[in-house]
Amino acid sequence: MNIIKKIINSALALTFAASIAGAQNLWTKLDDLKANYDWVDLSFEVSPQTPHWYGFDPLVVTEKYTFANTDGWFESSLYTLPGQYGTHTDFPGHFDTKSGAKRTSDYTDVRDLAYKLIVIDKSEAVKKNADYVLSKKDVLDFEKQYGKIPPNSFVAFRSDWSKHSAETYENKDSNGKAHYPGWSLEALQFLIKERNVAVIGHETPDTDSAVEGEKSGFVKERYVLVSGKLNVELLKNLDKVPAVGSIVFLTFPNIKDGTGFTSRVFAVTPKN
Amino acid sequence: MNIIKKIINSALALTFAASIAGAQNLWTKLDDLKANYDWVDLSFEVSPQTPHWYGFDPLVVTEKYTFANTDGWFESSLYTLPGQYGTHTDFPGHFDTKSGAKRTSDYTDVRDLAYKLIVIDKSEAVKKNADYVLSKKDVLDFEKQYGKIPPNSFVAFRSDWSKHSAETYENKDSNGKAHYPGWSLEALQFLIKERNVAVIGHETPDTDSAVEGEKSGFVKERYVLVSGKLNVELLKNLDKVPAVGSIVFLTFPNIKDGTGFTSRVFAVTPKN
Repeated sequence: MNIIKKIINSALALTFAASIAGAQNLWTKLDDLKANYDWVDLSFEVSPQTPHWYGFDPLVVTEKYTFANTDGWFESSLYTLPGQYGTHTDFPGHFDTKSGAKRTSDYTDVRDLAYKLIVIDKSEAVKKNADYVLSKKDVLDFEKQYGKIPPNSFVAFRSDWSKHSAETYENKDSNGKAHYPGWSLEALQFLIKERNVAVIGHETPDTDSAVEGEKSGFVKERYVLVSGKLNVELLKNLDKVPAVGSIVFLTFPNIKDGTGFTSRVFAVTPKN
Repeated sequence: MNIIKKIINSALALTFAASIAGAQNLWTKLDDLKANYDWVDLSFEVSPQTPHWYGFDPLVVTEKYTFANTDGWFESSLYTLPGQYGTHTDFPGHFDTKSGAKRTSDYTDVRDLAYKLIVIDKSEAVKKNADYVLSKKDVLDFEKQYGKIPPNSFVAFRSDWSKHSAETYENKDSNGKAHYPGWSLEALQFLIKERNVAVIGHETPDTDSAVEGEKSGFVKERYVLVSGKLNVELLKNLDKVPAVGSIVFLTFPNIKDGTGFTSRVFAVTPKN
């Protein structure tokens, strides 16, 4: 009886071992991604010192519980932050009043948390001119070099601006006027209308350059959001990912009806 | 001159087209993952109504800016929430006072945001007994059926508890005593010591069952965290992913020195 039971059990174990082996297709893919590619964090650490738009207060952290008893330690904090704090995603409802304008909780198809990453490097031009505006010609030159930008991709403007500390992030001149780079409307129109990209990203706190944003309002950011696209700000480490060929994950807590939220953005990228 | 320029340009375009084609390895993988697999959100929407541990207040949302002008609409909200709100990750420092106990900002290797997912389904047992405690035998029975649990995996206890509304989440009896299921210490010791898993997850607000948690403190959760592992609570949709074979992404904003934070957890899984 015992022997029969043992035989049945080991036969069962073999069958089930086969079933787990058959299911390992995705696990093999994950092992490959972890072993053979670099993973790069494109987001700022979130603290009161994190760069953020001047219209918002810094993160407030208060201790909700901190105690030790005979059983041990227990610590939990309370966080107050604007939806647009640090590295964050702006959803269409941030700038678009239409009732159908998408908000965080519309992103329930979690497929929308991963994209093909395109990185347009204008860091040398920005080094020479902090007011640099990325033009349609820059996009066309990029395509001449790397090929056509694929639909539904995440297009990031590498300026190396994220190497600034929070204190110098706005780069104010002696008149208190901020100077940082931005996108031109023509470049955005080309990317959205002609290439149907899904996400626009940059290292600065605005889609518009500081000078243009002050002069004419947030025309470029409004264009991106009213077009129903996502806008991602305060990215970092764009110098650690290639122009083409990476996967980018754009992840955020699913805040109901949010117009934006602090995000963890990271790339899986060919090894250097 | 113009013809020569054209020839050079088209030769360049070909070279660069080849270079983008060569870089498309990861993009092809992403296309495959999006087209041939299901993507399942394992996280609750985050609102004042989201289920959370009774020791915390609900999320507070205040409007920071809401205005329309001639240029259009602008809306931004301010959020106050405990690190352990809704679907969230607990880091070792939540229960471990050691200076080396890991916190959110220690997870800078973003490879640690993806795992192999194991789902142990005890939903039928929980339906019969809300105080059900997942035993070491349950884990061994799972392995008999599906094979050995791989190291560094994310092991989730499916109880279907997430089908409760926030109001009935604690399932209080007529004496005001909560009743929901949990893990046994023996099951956790086996998973952590013998199988070296990385993450323990469940649909309830605690690692410990409500009855055991009240009786003896949070012994099970403390064990997980003091072992240096992650603890993920208030998962949902575990009935939509198979026992083995999915990839799970466990993502959260990188809050400096946080002991926990609201997380977006999602799975890439074989199509039904």
